[in-house]
Amino acid sequence: MVKRKSSRPAIISLITDFGGEGEYVGAMKGVILKSNPDVQIIDITHRISPQNILQAAFVLMNTYPYFPSGTVHLVVVDPGVGTKRRPMVLKKKGHLFVGPDNGVFSFVLGAPGKAEAVEITAERYFLSPVSSTFHGRDLFAPAAAHLAAGKGLKEFGPGFEDFVTVGWPQPERKRKSLRGKVLWADGFGNLITNICRKESGSLLEKRPILIKGRGWTIQRLSRTYGEAGPGEPTALFGSSGLLEIAVNGESAQERLGIRAGGMIEIILREKDAGISPGNAEEVQAKNKN
Amino acid sequence: MVKRKSSRPAIISLITDFGGEGEYVGAMKGVILKSNPDVQIIDITHRISPQNILQAAFVLMNTYPYFPSGTVHLVVVDPGVGTKRRPMVLKKKGHLFVGPDNGVFSFVLGAPGKAEAVEITAERYFLSPVSSTFHGRDLFAPAAAHLAAGKGLKEFGPGFEDFVTVGWPQPERKRKSLRGKVLWADGFGNLITNICRKESGSLLEKRPILIKGRGWTIQRLSRTYGEAGPGEPTALFGSSGLLEIAVNGESAQERLGIRAGGMIEIILREKDAGISPGNAEEVQAKNKN
Amino acid sequence: MVKRKSSRPAIISLITDFGGEGEYVGAMKGVILKSNPDVQIIDITHRISPQNILQAAFVLMNTYPYFPSGTVHLVVVDPGVGTKRRPMVLKKKGHLFVGPDNGVFSFVLGAPGKAEAVEITAERYFLSPVSSTFHGRDLFAPAAAHLAAGKGLKEFGPGFEDFVTVGWPQPERKRKSLRGKVLWADGFGNLITNICRKESGSLLEKRPILIKGRGWTIQRLSRTYGEAGPGEPTALFGSSGLLEIAVNGESAQERLGIRAGGMIEIILREKDAGISPGNAEEVQAKNKN
Repeated sequence: MVKRKSSRPAIISLITDFGGEGEYVGAMKGVILKSNPDVQIIDITHRISPQNILQAAFVLMNTYPYFPSGTVHLVVVDPGVGTKRRPMVLKKKGHLFVGPDNGVFSFVLGAPGKAEAVEITAERYFLSPVSSTFHGRDLFAPAAAHLAAGKGLKEFGPGFEDFVTVGWPQPERKRKSLRGKVLWADGFGNLITNICRKESGSLLEKRPILIKGRGWTIQRLSRTYGEAGPGEPTALFGSSGLLEIAVNGESAQERLGIRAGGMIEIILREKDAGISPGNAEEVQAKNKN
Repeated sequence: MVKRKSSRPAIISLITDFGGEGEYVGAMKGVILKSNPDVQIIDITHRISPQNILQAAFVLMNTYPYFPSGTVHLVVVDPGVGTKRRPMVLKKKGHLFVGPDNGVFSFVLGAPGKAEAVEITAERYFLSPVSSTFHGRDLFAPAAAHLAAGKGLKEFGPGFEDFVTVGWPQPERKRKSLRGKVLWADGFGNLITNICRKESGSLLEKRPILIKGRGWTIQRLSRTYGEAGPGEPTALFGSSGLLEIAVNGESAQERLGIRAGGMIEIILREKDAGISPGNAEEVQAKNKN
Repeated sequence: MVKRKSSRPAIISLITDFGGEGEYVGAMKGVILKSNPDVQIIDITHRISPQNILQAAFVLMNTYPYFPSGTVHLVVVDPGVGTKRRPMVLKKKGHLFVGPDNGVFSFVLGAPGKAEAVEITAERYFLSPVSSTFHGRDLFAPAAAHLAAGKGLKEFGPGFEDFVTVGWPQPERKRKSLRGKVLWADGFGNLITNICRKESGSLLEKRPILIKGRGWTIQRLSRTYGEAGPGEPTALFGSSGLLEIAVNGESAQERLGIRAGGMIEIILREKDAGISPGNAEEVQAKNKN
């Protein structure tokens, strides 16, 4: 049992791929609270696609900056649990991060600013015995609880800098088109692509475009979902800065039959060009799977 | 960062249609906690059917009265995000409500009692910049946090009274029958209809009835799920006062093949009438979809 | 409104089969907080398979010991709601438990240690009126809140000892094999069986084995999921001590086509035996459904 130095309740946020079923999430919460009963535990999501490190890294990047500094972000998407991948604690921009060194912290590490990281080796903070399949409970949750209680990074293990990272899957820029990939669908069935506003916004927002699928076309970006007519497909940069294909009032995933892994080709049209079979290049938006 | 006046921890309850996946819910929670780290955030549900305003209004009506007064209920089911629908704060019966003026507060507004409402226009409380697709994070969450911290309604914007509301979809009363609609299924697959005990209880509970589907009939209302035999369909007024079609130990939705939107006809029988092809009117319970 | 004696925030953990949809979970949380606003409510899971008492008992067994003593564990998996099954409060090993006397506390009761239990009969703690279909809200949640506020067991009703319990479904031991059952799949699609490490670990871990399905075989237990090649089936004792069939990087449930209720036969091979059609007994791993 550890005491926290500050009077403000510590916050631990959780991102996992455990799903909502079963005992995994509850066991981790119990471990945290037994060590540190005053902590406030905040579920971000437990529905990362199983073992999808890129998605976990993305959700973390789009949530942690909104939390107060000092928050401990516990990320357990850990396909290599029990193998030789390093468990780690990371400190950056006043936030603390706990999880496996497998890429889930790629976009935190990639952002500007100084990072400090240690490998978690201090067995005195582990549950005993440590299972080989559930480090979330036996190793990461106790580490997060002790961090939230004010323990310094150096108490967990030695520093390191050769982080494992995953890169952003870049869209393919051609002369007259941009070819992107559907990364996942959100809870509304909106298809989230790898095309970022930051890099491609000026390219796409200044000219007419053409995205064409089986029986549907999109000819310009919109600003809101509601701009399209009911049941009409539309494309827009969503709240996380990624291009989304949406259908107003429906699930684009179901309606357009496109899933994670599917490709989207955006034809970059001239300002005064009409759309006709003659001048539209071959376009496609189909499911790769 | 704002300070709360009372010593009791403020509570913010959340109802959204974001699903459990992705970053949306977590980003809202972060925004609330960064503004007001002492607040207790309570998930009611994030699984309202996408953009189902009626369901959100119903879940709110059946949860908010159980919370302590002073609770801030944040409801983000917002198909018109970024368009001209008004963001609003509502105060009624000692509870506070934040969300879009699109009908989600219909049954709070429709209940007896005095309501006070303002449109949220005070940009000093918004995140900057405000996205056009995620007012839950950029506008509603900050407003809820400031309300929970003790800010008065008038600080958010001007009052208004011409609320957008949705009506309850009334069942159709015929001379010898009552024709209702399946609104949705609950987590057990119980089919929740639009038939209220308050209005139709005395009609249905005092006489034999007949509900007939493909290969099944229900001949009386029961009081508990367990009254029917295993695998047997039954009808009862559930905990929220709506008539449900259930199958003991199974999902009625799967077993009976009826979904949201399906119609249910309840034949009102005479007390001494037997059931035979001769005196039973044409009955049906089928999926409209 | 009740006051808690201790200064430490009380914790109430929740296990239900309500699913994430609808008003049920939110109404229970509201009732708890209205009675006791300082309590910290912790979601363990609301996705127990509908009415699966064994699964609820298992999840409880694998989570409650990790929580601090004094935690109130509220378990509402209650197929017999409104019928004559007893509502109960249980105290064991410093933990408190509230729920129906239908077997959900079987593995708490079955563990070593002294238990104290009372039937909940004190109507002064119930919501009024008590519905016949939602004791979670009207009876169990208020009882949990009052327990968390420091009320003693005896205030809720008379003691009893003739608990309803469910037994663990034992695997079938034959001379040269062990025949187990898939109880459920976890969020990764790992197939969790009824074969416990405690009882069968020494039998299985000391010798070569053979599990054979349609187009796949497993010839030894592994220690981690990652030991198998990508897409390769493997068997291991998971973090809760049960034998799991997993596929590295995929859902075993989908990949192997085995579901809850399916049988798994593990052939116990001699140490020096090869695998050939000649010496392998007839083996199977198929879905009973």
